[in-house]
Amino acid sequence: MSEFNKTTIIVFSGDLDKALASFIIGTGAAAMGKEVTMFFTFWGLNILRKEQYVHIDKPFLDKMFGKMMPRDPEKLGLSKMNMGGMGAKLMKKVMKEKNISSLKELIELARELDIKLVACTMSMDALGLHKEELIDGLEFAGVAHYLSEANESNINLFI
Amino acid sequence: MSEFNKTTIIVFSGDLDKALASFIIGTGAAAMGKEVTMFFTFWGLNILRKEQYVHIDKPFLDKMFGKMMPRDPEKLGLSKMNMGGMGAKLMKKVMKEKNISSLKELIELARELDIKLVACTMSMDALGLHKEELIDGLEFAGVAHYLSEANESNINLFI
Amino acid sequence: MSEFNKTTIIVFSGDLDKALASFIIGTGAAAMGKEVTMFFTFWGLNILRKEQYVHIDKPFLDKMFGKMMPRDPEKLGLSKMNMGGMGAKLMKKVMKEKNISSLKELIELARELDIKLVACTMSMDALGLHKEELIDGLEFAGVAHYLSEANESNINLFI
Repeated sequence: MSEFNKTTIIVFSGDLDKALASFIIGTGAAAMGKEVTMFFTFWGLNILRKEQYVHIDKPFLDKMFGKMMPRDPEKLGLSKMNMGGMGAKLMKKVMKEKNISSLKELIELARELDIKLVACTMSMDALGLHKEELIDGLEFAGVAHYLSEANESNINLFI
Repeated sequence: MSEFNKTTIIVFSGDLDKALASFIIGTGAAAMGKEVTMFFTFWGLNILRKEQYVHIDKPFLDKMFGKMMPRDPEKLGLSKMNMGGMGAKLMKKVMKEKNISSLKELIELARELDIKLVACTMSMDALGLHKEELIDGLEFAGVAHYLSEANESNINLFI
Repeated sequence: MSEFNKTTIIVFSGDLDKALASFIIGTGAAAMGKEVTMFFTFWGLNILRKEQYVHIDKPFLDKMFGKMMPRDPEKLGLSKMNMGGMGAKLMKKVMKEKNISSLKELIELARELDIKLVACTMSMDALGLHKEELIDGLEFAGVAHYLSEANESNINLFI
């Protein structure tokens, strides 16, 4: 099995709690010495958006999607008990008090551990997101790339 | 590993965005030459409902579930930002403009690529859905069938 | 592959329908002779909470989370069509009429089949849940334990 021991995670969700779970699993696997690919698709792309607004001329619908979706990890909500963002704030406060890494710290750690962060180009197209709007150091690829990584992985998750 | 290279996807969600992701991954894997099984359970069964109403005498609760759940891929909502169906409409409009395949086209493609579309019989029972209400060409089986396929797969996802 | 044939399920969701799916798959795999680990994290921990209230002195935020989250399988809602709990009640009624096992029965069956039920300690910390508040017979571990089990599994799911 030595040639099939990668870990590949599809990050479909843009919820804070699921993003945290994705990065905790991903960085944990990388720390164990596994080659890890995280493939961000649909709402998961919002985790990778730059905090600052990037001006790009876009068609109307693309602009609309862009406005409605959260920009930057600090703005993500919880999948449950979000209560207009209060739940997410509470969760972050509790995590900080208990010295649990924040999402931003986990993303940083993922880079340091050489996790491949791949943005799904088809989803970028559908949601009208451009490379310039996403954080630096990403790879850009489609489902065929995901599948070839997944095919060499023994841990495959869809989150 | 040659005998363990199938791809098996549990489609639990009946959301348009997750259904799209399921079929994009499934058809991608099949196009790469993998044997693919998609196992539809709970809300995922709604993706397989026929567009036209099929009259069947059912107990009251079954009828109620049947009425409340969306019939046919065109009626599915998004898992996020659905806004009473407007989000789903927007998404479909954007995808059409950008020549991304619709869910209906992906289901058609899945059939052409000989993907096994399996409806979970226990979920059909729980939700009161009958074979006649689902599209043609499906297989019907339970969790034991799913597990035997998953056991021969190196890509297993729950969506 | 004989040494890589475990089944490992991350139960992230605390929704009744997803909890049911997790246990149906888990007990099915165990019945087929597979070694099964179910790793409960975030909202999934609520599935394991004791029905009766356990008094523990907690910081304010922990107490608040504890109050807002459902205690005991009977209180879980559906991920879709929950309608303030009515959907969950309907689902349970329908399942009972059709002799489909309830979540409580499935948890009992999971124990009988020697499925390892593991509570994620980091999530317990984040949500302020204590061992005394969870049902008996659990193991307590972190992501490293999950990953070592997942690494020996050919069926890995995130639910």
